[in-house]
Amino acid sequence: MRVYRYEQNPLITPKDVKPLHEGFEVIGAFNAGIARLGDEIIMLLRVAERPPSDDVVRAPVFDPVHKRMVVLEFNRLDDRYDLKDPRAIVPRSAGEPAHLTSISYLRIARSPDGRHFQVDDHAFLYPETSLETFGLEDPRIAQIGDTYYITYSSVSENGVGVGLVSTRDFQNVVRHGLIFPPENKDTVLFPDRIGGKYYALHRPVPCSLGKPEIWIAESDNLLQWGNHRHLLGCRHGHWDSRRIGAGTVPIRTEMGWLELYHGADQQDRYCMGAVLLDLNDPGKVIARSEEPILLPEAAYERDGFFGNVVFSCGALVDGDVVRLYYGVADTSMACAELSLQEILRSLH
Amino acid sequence: MRVYRYEQNPLITPKDVKPLHEGFEVIGAFNAGIARLGDEIIMLLRVAERPPSDDVVRAPVFDPVHKRMVVLEFNRLDDRYDLKDPRAIVPRSAGEPAHLTSISYLRIARSPDGRHFQVDDHAFLYPETSLETFGLEDPRIAQIGDTYYITYSSVSENGVGVGLVSTRDFQNVVRHGLIFPPENKDTVLFPDRIGGKYYALHRPVPCSLGKPEIWIAESDNLLQWGNHRHLLGCRHGHWDSRRIGAGTVPIRTEMGWLELYHGADQQDRYCMGAVLLDLNDPGKVIARSEEPILLPEAAYERDGFFGNVVFSCGALVDGDVVRLYYGVADTSMACAELSLQEILRSLH
Repeated sequence: MRVYRYEQNPLITPKDVKPLHEGFEVIGAFNAGIARLGDEIIMLLRVAERPPSDDVVRAPVFDPVHKRMVVLEFNRLDDRYDLKDPRAIVPRSAGEPAHLTSISYLRIARSPDGRHFQVDDHAFLYPETSLETFGLEDPRIAQIGDTYYITYSSVSENGVGVGLVSTRDFQNVVRHGLIFPPENKDTVLFPDRIGGKYYALHRPVPCSLGKPEIWIAESDNLLQWGNHRHLLGCRHGHWDSRRIGAGTVPIRTEMGWLELYHGADQQDRYCMGAVLLDLNDPGKVIARSEEPILLPEAAYERDGFFGNVVFSCGALVDGDVVRLYYGVADTSMACAELSLQEILRSLH
Repeated sequence: MRVYRYEQNPLITPKDVKPLHEGFEVIGAFNAGIARLGDEIIMLLRVAERPPSDDVVRAPVFDPVHKRMVVLEFNRLDDRYDLKDPRAIVPRSAGEPAHLTSISYLRIARSPDGRHFQVDDHAFLYPETSLETFGLEDPRIAQIGDTYYITYSSVSENGVGVGLVSTRDFQNVVRHGLIFPPENKDTVLFPDRIGGKYYALHRPVPCSLGKPEIWIAESDNLLQWGNHRHLLGCRHGHWDSRRIGAGTVPIRTEMGWLELYHGADQQDRYCMGAVLLDLNDPGKVIARSEEPILLPEAAYERDGFFGNVVFSCGALVDGDVVRLYYGVADTSMACAELSLQEILRSLH
């Protein structure tokens, strides 16, 4: 697979983003949704900010009643908490919820050419409800008619579910609540009705039976979803053996709907691959990548907050050129161009 | 709380049910949904059947392609499998799915008086799809107009989700697919529209953040669901500290919607309690049981396949009398009468 990584990569790094919160540090500007708005290319970044941690470990939490951020403090020596994962504060007893050491929200970066981006000063979507107290993550943008529908992970002590908002101008936002309850993420909406119905790919995380795999659901109105079916599983011994999830909004081609999805292996290396779904029944898998179409090779993909990760939430397609925007190492954003026909030819 | 347990308890036990599968043993006839159909009381049992296990442990699995049951065999000495939970065969490596040692399906028992039941010879709802290969469990029946909507746990190697079927006569069934993806169970539909919308209580099982607690969702058509909200949490140190889930279809009272739900504590003792929801906005909790309204005390509730369990999937209400039907010890069915007013007065 020929992959042309932009010379400007990484396109956005944490140091390009001024923190919204006084005294906080931006530790990630990554896993962005992508859209065209007029002459601009809009990158909807997940920005992760963290308060300083020293003798105390701090957890930022949005208070939905008073509509403000509060910072909880945990003593590093307090053995009631497990702190070995730097991203989380996990109580050892059953009574208390876990907390995260950073909070994510969605913020726009704009570009005239898709290579040079300017980050907005303010948030586009910030926590607001009791289901967003730990933040908003990993947005995907589906343009349906003249409206952009944005799905994102809504994170709180009650779990990780999928939120939906819509906008026509990336200024005014209509909130539609949670469309999939916990535990679920990596949701993309198909950009057209198929046989009169809307479709979504989503990724439940079952606890007992089952694995983190890709499911499909249908809807009459985008807000309420049913007829959930299991679509695509992990493959033992492959690059996508441990967990998979939808990445880009599905791309309509003559051969079928092309979905570029992520897969992680037992070593937690995240790659991108492709699956082709039937044009008239997207619940039917036609073909799939044996090998990844993109894997973490560049230094900025291998090293970072969580290394060895390429993770796309959106692509722009012009003729045969797929501009795949993707988060690298849970830290920054990059872009690579691939050939649509070459991806399609590579599928089995 | 005054509780009048029927003298006939347990009303149905496994030995009252002839196995559907040659050579299998019925190990449970429990967690039944309940409805009135004409002059009859219908108990929709979860029947669990098991093939014999000796040197080999056997796992019954429905094959949705050939529409027949197959029985997989696992050598008891094969250390690739963890067999310490007699209900499951759990592979120690990541590549293979787990299996169950029994399969459940739904079967009707009929009664003229609610105390003496006769079990049908055939299944009412048997596995049919690739999402039901491990069985159907724990049905709830909501009568809406002249149609009965039945929600149940749909169990397969892909996870445990919530299936929906409808019937008018308990003979002809319309299947509506999975309304909630894994991991989810314990779903009850409200028997009326509220402010033009249908509502459901459901119980996701999140893996990372969150606990097995009660959520509420809304729908225009009963088939597609959205606006998921967290409704009711576990209470540390209480009888419902570890996991909770909806039990009966909500009962309309003058004070609000009365939901009789189950809660388990750290010792996995399952009790029934009550919560009162706002009549016009069932997403609002008005009051809740401090203490259980029913707890496992009788011998048939304490001893069985999984002891110390009372677990209701349905009640019939006549004036002040709540006839609470409930599974006992994951084995049999029982019924107790409680006073509606006494339950309401007990709430805080």
